[in-house]
Amino acid sequence: MHRQILPTALLRLIDELGSLPGVGPRTAERYAYHLLRASDKKSHTLADSLAKLHTQVSTCPITFALIDFDEQYSKLYTDESRNKQLVALVEEPLDIVALEKTGQFNGTYHVLGGAISPIDGIGPEQLHIPELVQRIKKDNVIELIIATNASVEGESTALFVQNYIKDADIQIDVSRLARGIPVGVDLEYADQITLGHALEGRKKL
Amino acid sequence: MHRQILPTALLRLIDELGSLPGVGPRTAERYAYHLLRASDKKSHTLADSLAKLHTQVSTCPITFALIDFDEQYSKLYTDESRNKQLVALVEEPLDIVALEKTGQFNGTYHVLGGAISPIDGIGPEQLHIPELVQRIKKDNVIELIIATNASVEGESTALFVQNYIKDADIQIDVSRLARGIPVGVDLEYADQITLGHALEGRKKL
Repeated sequence: MHRQILPTALLRLIDELGSLPGVGPRTAERYAYHLLRASDKKSHTLADSLAKLHTQVSTCPITFALIDFDEQYSKLYTDESRNKQLVALVEEPLDIVALEKTGQFNGTYHVLGGAISPIDGIGPEQLHIPELVQRIKKDNVIELIIATNASVEGESTALFVQNYIKDADIQIDVSRLARGIPVGVDLEYADQITLGHALEGRKKL
Repeated sequence: MHRQILPTALLRLIDELGSLPGVGPRTAERYAYHLLRASDKKSHTLADSLAKLHTQVSTCPITFALIDFDEQYSKLYTDESRNKQLVALVEEPLDIVALEKTGQFNGTYHVLGGAISPIDGIGPEQLHIPELVQRIKKDNVIELIIATNASVEGESTALFVQNYIKDADIQIDVSRLARGIPVGVDLEYADQITLGHALEGRKKL
């Protein structure tokens, strides 16, 4: 019934917006209607950005971070002020944004391109692990900070990378981001796994 | 700092998606990254729908519902099986979708194009009220169901329309959608205004 009430062009847009992550039909309707009410120029600008997205975004062949199509390498790698011997290993390019926002990391990044997840058909061979090992050797990396997500997939990926490096007979420090109670969270609301990590990783004062 | 980390084309898309209603920077990042990881075809299809949106959607000159650009009037108006003497007055075109989904209304619709809201600079002169009066006369409308939102703006718009019709010396039945406790909501969680409405509109068994 819904199908017959709204114009075809609007329905098509609602359908397409509905495929964005976490967007249900009602939200898609709201987005589409907002764009319809906004100026024609606005939807054209958005259309233009979308059309250019894939051609104007490229991937750094060393760090696998996202870069402009006319760049050769990630600026976070080529920048002289960044420590190439310290590498943070992340799952996705957007994780770099989160770490950079802390302003506390002056090393370089390596993007795995996901996490090991048998259920999604992602095995270690699809991740940029061999490239990481190459890079560790080439740049004489001293420390690798494994900054994968605190999920089951992130944890098993961390373990896999750790063993892979051990098997490759590479002598570097490997660390993981601390697990513990996030700032602003009451102890009583922390889940038991987090609390367990917090106990285990307790700091002497 | 954020500005330098991601490619320009991705940042531009994040910015534009961030102007959708209720979309913050993090959500916009997720949408943009999803589109980047999806096929080039997918973002091009979405771009195409956006570019066509304004040219392929038109407004019915009688009901102000949204229609296909090649239609003259809303099908919900021209359809012979719909009762033209019963009109539901709604704020926005999407409200029609909600009412149609009930499957309990076989009248026609009239879209006001918003609600009176001095704070947003929307006065009654921006709403399609004179067109409503014309239509009431032309189609010999017997009942007008005011189906504006249950917000302050919706309530004052309803009151304004009611007075406008009285002043125009038009003799028709004017009704409002019932206010009351929504299905599935416990009495203790209903707010006092809703509960007040529910008491006032109680039904004899």
